[in-house]
Amino acid sequence: MQIQNVTIIGAGNVSWHLSQELIKAGIIITQIFSRDINKAESIAKIVNAQAINSLNDIDSESDLILLCVSDKAINEVVNKLSIEPKIIAHTAGSMSINALNKFKTHGVFYPLQTFTKGIDIDFSQTPLCIEANNRECESKLLTLAKLISKNTYKLNSEQRLQCHLAAVFANNFTNHMFHVAEHILKQKDISFDILKPIIRETSNKVQNSSPIKAQTGPAIRNDQTTINSHLNLLSDTEMEKMYSFVSQNIWKLKQQNS
Amino acid sequence: MQIQNVTIIGAGNVSWHLSQELIKAGIIITQIFSRDINKAESIAKIVNAQAINSLNDIDSESDLILLCVSDKAINEVVNKLSIEPKIIAHTAGSMSINALNKFKTHGVFYPLQTFTKGIDIDFSQTPLCIEANNRECESKLLTLAKLISKNTYKLNSEQRLQCHLAAVFANNFTNHMFHVAEHILKQKDISFDILKPIIRETSNKVQNSSPIKAQTGPAIRNDQTTINSHLNLLSDTEMEKMYSFVSQNIWKLKQQNS
Repeated sequence: MQIQNVTIIGAGNVSWHLSQELIKAGIIITQIFSRDINKAESIAKIVNAQAINSLNDIDSESDLILLCVSDKAINEVVNKLSIEPKIIAHTAGSMSINALNKFKTHGVFYPLQTFTKGIDIDFSQTPLCIEANNRECESKLLTLAKLISKNTYKLNSEQRLQCHLAAVFANNFTNHMFHVAEHILKQKDISFDILKPIIRETSNKVQNSSPIKAQTGPAIRNDQTTINSHLNLLSDTEMEKMYSFVSQNIWKLKQQNS
Repeated sequence: MQIQNVTIIGAGNVSWHLSQELIKAGIIITQIFSRDINKAESIAKIVNAQAINSLNDIDSESDLILLCVSDKAINEVVNKLSIEPKIIAHTAGSMSINALNKFKTHGVFYPLQTFTKGIDIDFSQTPLCIEANNRECESKLLTLAKLISKNTYKLNSEQRLQCHLAAVFANNFTNHMFHVAEHILKQKDISFDILKPIIRETSNKVQNSSPIKAQTGPAIRNDQTTINSHLNLLSDTEMEKMYSFVSQNIWKLKQQNS
């Protein structure tokens, strides 16, 4: 029997996205748990589920209990859960599958994506990384994953943590570069809009070629004239340090690769 | 009289893209200059222009001489050019308009985009930043810019340099983060493909909201447990330094903004 109904613990971004994708694929969401009943309600009403705020009310007959909570909260929930679920899985990139060792049948269902409540994404492209403590559980989680995404991966906890680390660079750090860029433009009253096309193109380029081939700019050319004129503009010490550090790193990695 | 024909000096990425956009808009490209005649030929044949490799052959009757060469080469070309062009403009983000002071009528025609020969982009969205040393020249360059892009800006040299600096963060540094991410994945034999959806979504998010609002991840939450588990993975000292530096910077800027 494949997974047909799911109880979701957590009412944040991941819960908001996953619950809706699952019902679109014909899965029943039985319950949404949050300590804050209003948060649970806000998602439960969208996916026609029961909102609950006590872990004692969790339905132990659910085919899958899916933990969509922060890394820190996983241990807390695990300690408090007194039932033996059919399958329990967490959705965290940097948590080992062993966090769920207390339960007989457990796994991981990790979507490698940046989620924001209310912003739709093309979920069919979102990588779903699966791990399980036995073959049957793995097969069930993989079948569920394939209902909502074309990109499914079987990764162990070590590989998943590596992916999560890589995603911090590709998403959080990248986004921080956009933030610094916005800050620099504001100093001369220029709208961030002017950078949107180049930001879009930067992400387009690496869809079909390696980042190292796509690299341009003063750092990779070691163009000290431009680098110095940029450093002169960066009155803010932290931004100046960032510029120097990343520029030097671009050049160093180029030397290593050539 | 508006600009109807253009001579292009340079046969790199910017020349490849701009020359083709200009002919699509009905402009005649009279000549493509490169010291390497084969490079000049490779673009000239696409845009039905004359390929030349001597600056003495530049047609002084062209409505516009457009310098699509590296920053360093601009001064060299300026020194060697012995004609008085109707209008001469460079296409460099970080060069002042004053680099062309030798000529009576001069300006800047800077496309804020990352160009790669052979990779088509939606040029109509590319910001074109215009500056000129007189009103008539400015009007002519702006009219030309509007033929090929919906996003035209009048920016002075100081603002343009600031944009160029911001673009280094938004494009070069961002792309470097992708490169480091690829490197991290390779260590565990994981394909860079797994990051492509999150990279696309990272750039999508900031099209409609500010980067600071889009920020997620361990650094903005100051989640030291995850940060430490990531630092433990980064055996490479340079990547570890980068991770620490950018994470701290994310947290510092958050404190400043809150």
